[in-house]
Amino acid sequence: MPSIRAAIEACGLTDGATVSFHHHLRNGDDVLRAVMAEIAALGLRDIRIAPSSLFPVHAPLVDHIRSGVVTGISTAYMAGPVAEAVARGWLATPAVMQTHGGRARAIESGDLPIDVAFVAAPTADTYGNLNGVEGKSACGTLGYPMVDAKHARRVVAITDNLVSYPACPIDITQEDVDYVVAVDSIGDPRQIVSGSTRVTDKPDGLKIAATAARVIAASGLLKDGFSFQTGAGGVSLATAACLRDVMVERGIVGSFAAGGITGTIVEMFQAGLFRTLFNVQCFDLEAVESYRRDAAHQSMSASMYANPHNKGAVVNQLDAMVLGAAEIDLDFNVNVTLGAGGLIIGGSGGHSDTAAGAKLALVTTKLTAKSHPKIVDRVACITTPGETIDVVVTDEGVAVNPRRPDLRDRLLSEGLSVVTIGELREKAMRLTGEAVGTAPTERCGGTGRIVAVAEYRDGTVIDLVEAMPG
Amino acid sequence: MPSIRAAIEACGLTDGATVSFHHHLRNGDDVLRAVMAEIAALGLRDIRIAPSSLFPVHAPLVDHIRSGVVTGISTAYMAGPVAEAVARGWLATPAVMQTHGGRARAIESGDLPIDVAFVAAPTADTYGNLNGVEGKSACGTLGYPMVDAKHARRVVAITDNLVSYPACPIDITQEDVDYVVAVDSIGDPRQIVSGSTRVTDKPDGLKIAATAARVIAASGLLKDGFSFQTGAGGVSLATAACLRDVMVERGIVGSFAAGGITGTIVEMFQAGLFRTLFNVQCFDLEAVESYRRDAAHQSMSASMYANPHNKGAVVNQLDAMVLGAAEIDLDFNVNVTLGAGGLIIGGSGGHSDTAAGAKLALVTTKLTAKSHPKIVDRVACITTPGETIDVVVTDEGVAVNPRRPDLRDRLLSEGLSVVTIGELREKAMRLTGEAVGTAPTERCGGTGRIVAVAEYRDGTVIDLVEAMPG
Repeated sequence: MPSIRAAIEACGLTDGATVSFHHHLRNGDDVLRAVMAEIAALGLRDIRIAPSSLFPVHAPLVDHIRSGVVTGISTAYMAGPVAEAVARGWLATPAVMQTHGGRARAIESGDLPIDVAFVAAPTADTYGNLNGVEGKSACGTLGYPMVDAKHARRVVAITDNLVSYPACPIDITQEDVDYVVAVDSIGDPRQIVSGSTRVTDKPDGLKIAATAARVIAASGLLKDGFSFQTGAGGVSLATAACLRDVMVERGIVGSFAAGGITGTIVEMFQAGLFRTLFNVQCFDLEAVESYRRDAAHQSMSASMYANPHNKGAVVNQLDAMVLGAAEIDLDFNVNVTLGAGGLIIGGSGGHSDTAAGAKLALVTTKLTAKSHPKIVDRVACITTPGETIDVVVTDEGVAVNPRRPDLRDRLLSEGLSVVTIGELREKAMRLTGEAVGTAPTERCGGTGRIVAVAEYRDGTVIDLVEAMPG
Repeated sequence: MPSIRAAIEACGLTDGATVSFHHHLRNGDDVLRAVMAEIAALGLRDIRIAPSSLFPVHAPLVDHIRSGVVTGISTAYMAGPVAEAVARGWLATPAVMQTHGGRARAIESGDLPIDVAFVAAPTADTYGNLNGVEGKSACGTLGYPMVDAKHARRVVAITDNLVSYPACPIDITQEDVDYVVAVDSIGDPRQIVSGSTRVTDKPDGLKIAATAARVIAASGLLKDGFSFQTGAGGVSLATAACLRDVMVERGIVGSFAAGGITGTIVEMFQAGLFRTLFNVQCFDLEAVESYRRDAAHQSMSASMYANPHNKGAVVNQLDAMVLGAAEIDLDFNVNVTLGAGGLIIGGSGGHSDTAAGAKLALVTTKLTAKSHPKIVDRVACITTPGETIDVVVTDEGVAVNPRRPDLRDRLLSEGLSVVTIGELREKAMRLTGEAVGTAPTERCGGTGRIVAVAEYRDGTVIDLVEAMPG
């Protein structure tokens, strides 16, 4: 197709339709903006968007929300101006906040029917074969739109590297792609890899990481065949680095590491500490380069990664998962959705999926942040249910979920000291001066108007988000 | 699962169910026999089988047909004792003979719902990731069951090389596999590659091949970016070999070769004559080895290969396709389904799919065989409609379909002599002594009892097969 507009028209997009996007270009993505600008220019209204995630770069959506072009959002993660617009109640209908696996489930089951999936393609051939490893906007694997492309009524690939038929390698095949549009740029390559993907250098964080690695080592899981996932935060990466030392020391060869893949994990893989990688998304250019080059660095679709209703997701095979938290409560529920004042600061992504799947779901967090306790009586929003969290590692102690007395015993027998989550809570209160009996964080903003529905991975509603006050 | 029987029971297979198989192990496959023996032993009845193809090795099916365990067959190709049983009318319901692309279409659309797909897996890990490139029964790509696995209600992988999680590479993922069964052997590796996959050394065949290559060279398609497919028959391979010489001489680099891949095609690829290969099935061990090793030797599913109803099959991108024929008639209709006396000798496989997709669909055939004309008034069964055939190359002349006057002109201008299909017919009659006005081959056996329905790739009925006389 000669232009994005021509492709939209060819797809027969109408008012009320659902269009999907993916976030492998992260804060460098320009495809969502470009497509939505054309949709708005065409006079379409009441569009539901289903991006796998939303970043600050997607700020232009706010105007479309205000004007009624966009009236619905379904996504696994949102941060930045769009998240704020949703939290303020500007979107006409409550946003649906899914998990990465829940989104794949919803698409495959028909819960989330997509009229047109727009795929930002670093490379596309003239007949619709796509890959993410070549071209100036190379982002590595295309794990999220693999699912969209299989199930959307129409699929439009937008590329800034159109090659002659056939592309090689192929991550999304011509079977599933209706139209290909060549544009000058699908995004800003410098921003494609964004956010913190470096090991922390803060003493608190390093202390937490060292303890987390000790917990994993003591759990009984760290043996040949060990499998591991961690996020891209500084503490998570520091945990991986500590674990690397233990694995080298003990001569352990893991089976796989999974997830969004970072250079830290690639280094462990290339050092022979994992036989393979399962990669749904590259978090940095080292990961892109390794995915391009290393045959055992394998892609996985969002469904293969985390869908709870397929015949077996990779998260089900995870031994240890290192998770972050904005808040964690006395029932071990974790909030990574709402921040101070009821602002939406993210959402599950793969948090709930990996917590549910991993044998050891380990949350790392400082006990307090900016003079607020991070261990609370009741989280402002349940992103991940406490029954799927096994252990919390803070800079001031380790608490094991009472559902896992076996784990507590193992840690104690390996010389780790274990406290209760209540003890951590009390310590956090003492450190921040929060008095016992103070009103807990007001649930979900407390205005009574629902602005978002948090879905658990199986599609059940796990919490509601109310509009920010004021 | 500890055994095939346990897996069948776990799938909840009932009377009247449909089970599917694939034919990458060709005449060495032992999985269909083993599974059907268990199904029979369990007392199940009225089973419909949907193998991608049936070979002589599947003879034990005949007993199941006679006993009523198997009452329906849907397949793209059948040869050997089962084909004879069908032709004799022993199967309770007419067999459905599809094309490879039509089978994929039927599975994806729901026309052919599969209850349990049994996948013969040369390698499987403990959680259901499969590949065909490792293990003692390595057969290369798994293009056919990729479709079955995506759509069957239950999927059982049967392997003789169970590896620890995760397998690498992965051709069929854990997302789609319910059960894994380890057995001693999935087949006879020596028979996995079977049939004629050597260049012919017969003078007639070499003459046809040389002419076919000249026709392709004269067609205007043989330039950089050229794409090509041929079967594994001796004349087809000889045509490829002749074409190779022309490509080398002219310095032409093709875009891709596709199909069932043979060592002959691999050699052309490795010599740089094609940038990539699309492989739905390996026909010999050279192809298996290359698929394992060469990144640009890519797999394709049966749907990506040939499904007429997806968003773009590889056959649509083919320049030249070299096809065989048991008979071809005055309307250029081709029969590769019925042989002498009404015996079923094969079926379309990818014949109709590639003929429909390729810009130049070229049939090679001797003018006569065993004193029978191969150019006939009316084929005994239409496998591939004449409107999709462009040119017929025989040892006694070349005939161009009247629908392609442009092609006729091109051949003439390049110095090739062209006759009409009628002239070839007359010559064939003269050579065999068949008198003009003799009754044509009796259509479909002529007994009046329908034993098979030949479906065109889009699912429409293209011909009926009647029971063999006697």
